[in-house]
Amino acid sequence: MFKQERVIIENIAPQIQCGTFFIKRVVGETVTVWADILPDGHDVIQAEVLYMHSSEKKHRAVRMQAEGNDVYRAEFPVDKQGFYDYKIQAWVDHALNWQHGIEAKLKDEQYVRSELLDGIQYLIYLSEQLPKKERDTLAGWIAAFEDEKQYEAAIKAATSTKLHTWFLKYPQRRLPNVSKDLRVYVDRKKARFSTWYEFFPRSAAAEPGKHGTFKDCERLLPRIAKMGFDTVYFPPIHPIGEVNRKGKNNATHAQEGDSGVPWGIGSRLGGHKAIHPELGTEKDFRDLIWKAGEMGLEIAMDLAFQAAPDHPYVSDHPEWFRKRPDGTIQYAENPPKKYQDIVNFYFETPKYKALWEELLGVTLHWVAMGIRIFRVDNPHTKPYYFWHWLIANVKKDHPDVLFLAEAFSRPKVMQQLAKQGFSQSYTYFTWRVGKQELTDYLVELTQTEMREYYRPNFWPNTPDINPYHLQGANESMHLIRYALAATMSSNIGIYGPVFEYMDTAALPGKEEYLNCEKYEVRHWDWTIQNKIIYLITRINHARKDHPALQQTNNVRFCFIENDNLIAFYKWSDDKADEVLVVISLDSHNTQEGFLQLPLDALGLEGDIRLSMNDLITENSYIWSSEWNFVALDPNLPFHIFHINR
Amino acid sequence: MFKQERVIIENIAPQIQCGTFFIKRVVGETVTVWADILPDGHDVIQAEVLYMHSSEKKHRAVRMQAEGNDVYRAEFPVDKQGFYDYKIQAWVDHALNWQHGIEAKLKDEQYVRSELLDGIQYLIYLSEQLPKKERDTLAGWIAAFEDEKQYEAAIKAATSTKLHTWFLKYPQRRLPNVSKDLRVYVDRKKARFSTWYEFFPRSAAAEPGKHGTFKDCERLLPRIAKMGFDTVYFPPIHPIGEVNRKGKNNATHAQEGDSGVPWGIGSRLGGHKAIHPELGTEKDFRDLIWKAGEMGLEIAMDLAFQAAPDHPYVSDHPEWFRKRPDGTIQYAENPPKKYQDIVNFYFETPKYKALWEELLGVTLHWVAMGIRIFRVDNPHTKPYYFWHWLIANVKKDHPDVLFLAEAFSRPKVMQQLAKQGFSQSYTYFTWRVGKQELTDYLVELTQTEMREYYRPNFWPNTPDINPYHLQGANESMHLIRYALAATMSSNIGIYGPVFEYMDTAALPGKEEYLNCEKYEVRHWDWTIQNKIIYLITRINHARKDHPALQQTNNVRFCFIENDNLIAFYKWSDDKADEVLVVISLDSHNTQEGFLQLPLDALGLEGDIRLSMNDLITENSYIWSSEWNFVALDPNLPFHIFHINR
Repeated sequence: MFKQERVIIENIAPQIQCGTFFIKRVVGETVTVWADILPDGHDVIQAEVLYMHSSEKKHRAVRMQAEGNDVYRAEFPVDKQGFYDYKIQAWVDHALNWQHGIEAKLKDEQYVRSELLDGIQYLIYLSEQLPKKERDTLAGWIAAFEDEKQYEAAIKAATSTKLHTWFLKYPQRRLPNVSKDLRVYVDRKKARFSTWYEFFPRSAAAEPGKHGTFKDCERLLPRIAKMGFDTVYFPPIHPIGEVNRKGKNNATHAQEGDSGVPWGIGSRLGGHKAIHPELGTEKDFRDLIWKAGEMGLEIAMDLAFQAAPDHPYVSDHPEWFRKRPDGTIQYAENPPKKYQDIVNFYFETPKYKALWEELLGVTLHWVAMGIRIFRVDNPHTKPYYFWHWLIANVKKDHPDVLFLAEAFSRPKVMQQLAKQGFSQSYTYFTWRVGKQELTDYLVELTQTEMREYYRPNFWPNTPDINPYHLQGANESMHLIRYALAATMSSNIGIYGPVFEYMDTAALPGKEEYLNCEKYEVRHWDWTIQNKIIYLITRINHARKDHPALQQTNNVRFCFIENDNLIAFYKWSDDKADEVLVVISLDSHNTQEGFLQLPLDALGLEGDIRLSMNDLITENSYIWSSEWNFVALDPNLPFHIFHINR
Repeated sequence: MFKQERVIIENIAPQIQCGTFFIKRVVGETVTVWADILPDGHDVIQAEVLYMHSSEKKHRAVRMQAEGNDVYRAEFPVDKQGFYDYKIQAWVDHALNWQHGIEAKLKDEQYVRSELLDGIQYLIYLSEQLPKKERDTLAGWIAAFEDEKQYEAAIKAATSTKLHTWFLKYPQRRLPNVSKDLRVYVDRKKARFSTWYEFFPRSAAAEPGKHGTFKDCERLLPRIAKMGFDTVYFPPIHPIGEVNRKGKNNATHAQEGDSGVPWGIGSRLGGHKAIHPELGTEKDFRDLIWKAGEMGLEIAMDLAFQAAPDHPYVSDHPEWFRKRPDGTIQYAENPPKKYQDIVNFYFETPKYKALWEELLGVTLHWVAMGIRIFRVDNPHTKPYYFWHWLIANVKKDHPDVLFLAEAFSRPKVMQQLAKQGFSQSYTYFTWRVGKQELTDYLVELTQTEMREYYRPNFWPNTPDINPYHLQGANESMHLIRYALAATMSSNIGIYGPVFEYMDTAALPGKEEYLNCEKYEVRHWDWTIQNKIIYLITRINHARKDHPALQQTNNVRFCFIENDNLIAFYKWSDDKADEVLVVISLDSHNTQEGFLQLPLDALGLEGDIRLSMNDLITENSYIWSSEWNFVALDPNLPFHIFHINR
């Protein structure tokens, strides 16, 4: 195949799996594009990034800069939700090449009369592009180029900065090569910065022994808002299956009066679009969403695509389920484990399109009610392409809807879900406790390709995970885990109130809560205040005030010769906000050490004078050397310093 | 878009730039394919590599094996020249998944009656695939699965190895996902293993003062063959331009009788398809190719796509050249440098297709005459896509033709030419002299993606490069440079006889030969024998005898605590041949040190007992520990050990 272009464009970054997947940004960020760009021979080339929001008709262009070794770079801003396309165009720039040649020859004291005549063609092209008032200048130059007597004036014009600037501004893109289109999806800022509080609405009643309601939840909103959370996440709120219902502490058979598992969705009372009657009405739910919104809180719903055996789908759409040889519907299993209270959708059914459409309909039903955030239960047990399709279809009309993938699975499974479109993902943070493993994990998330598509959400606990290090743990350990999550990751959540009230009792030998709210209604005195609540509040407000903590990727670990102290420096993209965090990993003893400032990341040379303002205690310290002494005791096991220069 | 497949295939390796370029192999090698392959959920999957030579109609399949962390691997052999396609197919294997489930349930002591009934469908499918004589067994099993009374027999059959093997052999590929096609180009073995000797035919005359001829070259063939070379490369053999001809030592103006530069191609006597009359006739050239072939030598020709100002092209096809404003043809330049004896083709001409076709015609002209190897002059000053097109078009009908890219340019330029299709490439070896830089360079060539497409050819010198470390260098330094090239790289060449006769005089301050044959006819006494010739011969025969030295990629450096000693272990793909090389980098002093065997690469644990046979001296040593003393003096500054176990 004949292909006359002379400039090669390759190795474009960022791109995920050869452009199969889009990268992700939030509104207000930039995309920095890198590529290897090379011509044959020695000619001067130019390259530009062409980018365009999907609502636009015409690309905008930003010129790329040479970074050495045939690498070029440019960045463009993204200020609108939805997809942007970006690609690279590059060409041999004959006008600039001509100017470069004439300069080299003049330096070598060559006579460039012939070159001047050669250059007239570039001036003529320019004159066609330039605004009228500039054309006289060019006409004069062309005359000088033609006239041997005006040689001195001509070479002055030929090598002028003005001409160079014009050549740059009005390029003649001869035989340009254009790369394929790549895509970035731009979310609202919440995709990058969110602070979640999960609780069970049915445990929200003011009186013991009562089933909580949405009205009860309304009462709790000010408490949650005051603590600095911005997202309230509810486990499923739908009718709970009555067939094969499970009892307290995951007993195989429910006792009379047991409320069942909210994830066992569907009964004679309705399915995924219905509300469990004991929680209230649809209107109550709408009211709750509204009231929450007034306090700056969003309600996140659970999307759990599975059914109880008595879900209406089972009788209405038996073709969506796999039958056993005896004609019954196959319950969920992971041999030898059996989940008799759950039946999975059969995604291999020939009727899968109708099933997909129905599940999209469920999602859009709640979007129509005002929900903009979904926490998706076990997405890794449904086909990846299904999620890609569902998320794309929701976001097409509702780009502000966010999806959090609840997959605690193998690394590539979790990565794949993020690539397919999930806005945020749970992580292994829940089990990372040592300094090295915390460091390694954050480096993996932020310094590899994952930074482009995987938005981590750090949770110290969930209703499914009562990690060993929190079982029976003291107040200090709870503070450590919250501080780590909240400063390492800009997306974070806790499952309360077990966390702040330290209800850490576990099923023996398991990472599961004793008397877990998954299986029963609990009662809490939500009015109790304590130090954990106070410090969560302080930390959350520090996060709200400091853009450096509202992003995860800009992080640099600091050296401290003490394995019980972890420290890192974070900064906002524009470096206007800088934070340095030091956290003790020891909940029992004071730990101290000398912290080495990362001078290169801080851009410090010679004199050091940083005012370190602790955002929790409001104490201030002057650090004037590379090494600085730090001591943390279990009563307040962390510093979050705002750096003032 | 609906897409029901459940298995993700990604991150396939090897592939170059998302499959834009093919990888390379030689006949008899294998391609090992890796990929990340993952299903949703917990089901058992199977994956296979499908591969096919371009002359075939049907893919062959090889099953992939799980390597952990969702990575799969398989390899396939390539035994024919030309292109192979390869891709991956993967699916959830319901039969294997069913068997896996039943085994887990039986271990858990569950009753699997319903599962047996469920499994009948897989046995029925199998029975349709199996040879007739096996069907009775299956019919018996199906009956047992159906009959509750034969439960014990049924579970025995269900969990049998025989059934497992059948399921593996006759898979039901339900909802398979297939990756895109990737390509590998398979060359003849010479692309990987070649030993070049370059000389100027015009310097081949037996008598001083005479212009050498092809007949003179014939006389030299036995000498070259005896030294163990397999490729004789000639600078251009075409008529040399008479206009602006250069003189001796690159003088701007030739004197009467100066022969000019062979790369200044074309005159009234003809162009790229003609032979310089003083060298002989076309028949002489054919004879030479034939005689060389009889001695196991191939003649490599130079492809230099540029013209002297009096090349017939200039008058016959002025549209292939760029005009200056005064109507003359633009000579070559790289401002401020001028090359008035050369005019470049103007690849941006609207008539470029005719130009490309002509240059393809030139190449095929020499292919028709029996040439199968081209050394391409300065390919980086012609468009990359041109080379891609030309090489593809030649190899389409002549897959055995090889192209060596003579680009001493920036790394990405050299890599790009290799990606576009060049079979071999010159390298920076010519300038790498220190232990660390030699090591780093070979690691880059062999342990990065480059190993898949860039076949290095190591040259200690060329007519263009008389490197500083060889200028005035002693015999030992020549031996060191040849030994390094010949053991590090399986493709290698020297420019002789200046190399073996140590004619190292340089233009002052430049890496250029004094009185270089590029600019004048020289005379040599080709009958002189010396130690360099003797040892080149020994080394070349060691290369011929040892497959480990006939490839470059399998290399592992060995630790020696002496910066003047470099050592590495090399092996053939099948490990049947193993070599360990130690070379002193000091041409003046004896160097010694303890060499650490790379035990893991050697697959040694516990007792060590290696018989190390020096292929040059034929001495033998027993190495029985991890650390072994080595001493090398300038008289014989290297060991090439064959390892006997």
